Amino acid sequence: MIEKISHIGIAVHNLEEQMSYYQNVLGLPFLGTEEVTDQKVKVAMFGVGNVRIELLEPTAEDSPIAKFLEKKGSGVHHIAYEVDNIEKTIDTFQKNSLKMIDTSPRPGASGTKIAFAHPKSTFGVLTELCQEESENLENRKDD
Amino acid sequence: MIEKISHIGIAVHNLEEQMSYYQNVLGLPFLGTEEVTDQKVKVAMFGVGNVRIELLEPTAEDSPIAKFLEKKGSGVHHIAYEVDNIEKTIDTFQKNSLKMIDTSPRPGASGTKIAFAHPKSTFGVLTELCQEESENLENRKDD
Repeated sequence: MIEKISHIGIAVHNLEEQMSYYQNVLGLPFLGTEEVTDQKVKVAMFGVGNVRIELLEPTAEDSPIAKFLEKKGSGVHHIAYEVDNIEKTIDTFQKNSLKMIDTSPRPGASGTKIAFAHPKSTFGVLTELCQEESENLENRKDD
Repeated sequence: MIEKISHIGIAVHNLEEQMSYYQNVLGLPFLGTEEVTDQKVKVAMFGVGNVRIELLEPTAEDSPIAKFLEKKGSGVHHIAYEVDNIEKTIDTFQKNSLKMIDTSPRPGASGTKIAFAHPKSTFGVLTELCQEESENLENRKDD
């Protein structure tokens, strides 16, 4: 069901400010930036093994990331697990009485389908389920 | 220098309470528990791809994890990167004016050598450098 960690989301005040640390000190390959309008964030992505580090800078005051930064400051915002069938995983969460923020998948970056579980149900770790585009196709074949 | 994420450390009040979520809901293989006396924690480890999730429960009131829980509640405590030569990476951090909590490596779980960077230098993400035992041996051969 869960094969790997897809990415770790880190809330930051300013992408530019942190680029050098991830690129030059940690030496991680920079994979590009993307704007996710739905979440009101600009994202800078770095690779580390088969996991991505995603720096999240808010683009509006009412972005969930802006609220997080105000309350907690910069730091780890969420962990995203790659799942092969997001609908099934949401169902498993709900059958175990865990609260989902998204009870059905919505579009994430790069053609993914995503859903967040409520951090109160996951012991304080905001948890994202993330199904890659290629897995969407594979599932369609299976249906 | 950094090949992959070694593990994600998550501060928890009680290991038992969270085991079922990681094992049965997320379905991650349980790798075992370990007590790290140096850090005054009991650790429960789960595998996800080639990364570990490490749940950290304090065993004493003056454990760094007890202090974290008191201040922030349960949640992501640190990200550990696997490095091939920890001394070199500490040197790189210091040459870039980043503050290390450990300026030289100390023993971690399972024969690893570890060092923490100061979260103020790493934008709020407590960052551990971790060199596996096998890599210790490989480096010795190179010397």
